[in-house]
Amino acid sequence: MPDKLGGKKITIKDIAREAGISPGAVSQILNDKPCRISDEKKRKVREIAAKHRYVVNQTARALVTQRSYTVGLILPDIQNTFFSKLAKVLEETCREKGYFLMFANSDDSFESDCKLLSRFESRGVDGIFFIRSNESYQYEEQLSRRLQKMAVPYVIVDRPFFGFACDHVCFDNRLGGYQATKYLLEKGHRDIACVYLDDKRGNGANRLAGYLDALREHGIEPEADRMITGDNRIQGGYNAVEPVLKSGATAVLVCNDMMSLGFLRGLQERKYKVPRDMSIVSYDDSLREFLLDITLTTVTMDLDLLAQRAAEVMLGRIEGKRIRAQEIYLEPVLAVGNSVRRKKD
Amino acid sequence: MPDKLGGKKITIKDIAREAGISPGAVSQILNDKPCRISDEKKRKVREIAAKHRYVVNQTARALVTQRSYTVGLILPDIQNTFFSKLAKVLEETCREKGYFLMFANSDDSFESDCKLLSRFESRGVDGIFFIRSNESYQYEEQLSRRLQKMAVPYVIVDRPFFGFACDHVCFDNRLGGYQATKYLLEKGHRDIACVYLDDKRGNGANRLAGYLDALREHGIEPEADRMITGDNRIQGGYNAVEPVLKSGATAVLVCNDMMSLGFLRGLQERKYKVPRDMSIVSYDDSLREFLLDITLTTVTMDLDLLAQRAAEVMLGRIEGKRIRAQEIYLEPVLAVGNSVRRKKD
Repeated sequence: MPDKLGGKKITIKDIAREAGISPGAVSQILNDKPCRISDEKKRKVREIAAKHRYVVNQTARALVTQRSYTVGLILPDIQNTFFSKLAKVLEETCREKGYFLMFANSDDSFESDCKLLSRFESRGVDGIFFIRSNESYQYEEQLSRRLQKMAVPYVIVDRPFFGFACDHVCFDNRLGGYQATKYLLEKGHRDIACVYLDDKRGNGANRLAGYLDALREHGIEPEADRMITGDNRIQGGYNAVEPVLKSGATAVLVCNDMMSLGFLRGLQERKYKVPRDMSIVSYDDSLREFLLDITLTTVTMDLDLLAQRAAEVMLGRIEGKRIRAQEIYLEPVLAVGNSVRRKKD
Repeated sequence: MPDKLGGKKITIKDIAREAGISPGAVSQILNDKPCRISDEKKRKVREIAAKHRYVVNQTARALVTQRSYTVGLILPDIQNTFFSKLAKVLEETCREKGYFLMFANSDDSFESDCKLLSRFESRGVDGIFFIRSNESYQYEEQLSRRLQKMAVPYVIVDRPFFGFACDHVCFDNRLGGYQATKYLLEKGHRDIACVYLDDKRGNGANRLAGYLDALREHGIEPEADRMITGDNRIQGGYNAVEPVLKSGATAVLVCNDMMSLGFLRGLQERKYKVPRDMSIVSYDDSLREFLLDITLTTVTMDLDLLAQRAAEVMLGRIEGKRIRAQEIYLEPVLAVGNSVRRKKD
């Protein structure tokens, strides 16, 4: 059993006494700081520390440096493959820079967003990566008030807060919706539906806005019965099949992979084949390995780049380098699969 | 801009001076400790704290209580759906008990295991959930030496260290392999292959051991060409199709969902149908929503229960309640889908 559990915890002073040098010198040695101490002395100190199972107490260090070397990550759901990949890259990037990452799930609830922001603040983290809940788009004013009171730096990641001046690292979702729709138009489709999450000013609404941009650019007046709302989950995609078919669309932009899964299942039950009977463009590119028959044409996002940029902005902020907010919108890219076929007149 | 960035950080003493009470009283109020102070005074203190954007410094608190209220989680890969779900439940369970969860990915490397253990120790976490790398099964003695030196409590989760006395919360993988194979035997199959990860004494090897138990119980001598090793990834399952078909097996236990995905893809390319041409039992139950045509018969594991038990053991250990190691092996359960058909003689 380690000393900590058995009896009293060993301190730098104890080691200093045993080694016959000053506590300051012991601290320099154990923290790997450059110092003028003989290698023999260094070895002796390390041996004593190892014998007593001494570990450098970074909590004490945090009080001196006023840094905890810890960053918080608030995200909607670590089980969502999009966010788990993002979390992974963020953790690796932070670790390289000497920071630990603590995460917490909001389950897409605005109340949780607020609680978690406070919790991380109280914990004394150096900064917070904040992927806001979809629900928070219904509470823009409250969120704005809450963020204005923040006592630690934060970076809004993936889900932007338009019109609020703070650090942002997100994707351009409007551009993604535009790219996807333009591709369908170029393949000869004119009757195009869109299944999207109606999240006010969130990523779902922006993907729809891009869809509308592309249609109008091609002189097509959008039809209300072709804009179908869903919940970003499998069920929402499944439920959208009926209205999409009814609308007479020959192609559809499904604005999230989970909904595409449900949409494919609904088509399959009706014996519709993709792309023979319906062309589909999806969004997220998280299904590549899971679908056996189809490779979806899909809007892809470079999550490594998102995480790297977010970490850069965060570290710059923690080190107090900047005053002005950085607003970074990364461009998505369309990846072509076999889920769209050319429409002949 | 918060005070912290603009100028000097506000302290309890500053608030005490402004409110005209002692720093101790301010601390009691802001930490929500029961105290005999008038509600009016309390409100005044909170107002002053809010005005200056004071946040309770839990780093200072940690030095006093000798607890950081932080637990580390070392896991192979947060992107793996099995681990992301586990991480989610662990985080929620820890949060309920007032602990923060920091995680780090080992990428299944033993060197990373060791580095991360040291890193979390130095950080002063109260405990570590340790899901060891698969690679660590090649370094049992080194791992044993490392763990014996640990200065903080730890709980081995999901991947056991057999014969090493420490807290374990894992599944009984041998039982899972046995259940799956027994089911195939009961459906009349006698020519059964097994695709597994050869990880020495790890979960893959134990699933194979359960397969062998079931065969022998039914008086079937296992054949070497029906035990096929894979890498727990899609490619490994894909590569296993050829040897499984060559071996004349009518059914197969694929010991991990990723390999099942690859296996299904390989069968599909050869125009083999499941279960018409091959019966399959998988392991993990993470594909339910992704496969459109097939519902795999699969060994399932209750991850909520695993996380809850692991958290209980950890908190008991942190609070110093126990001396003896707890070794908990949870039972997996077979879920029946449509990927197995009865074999007629």
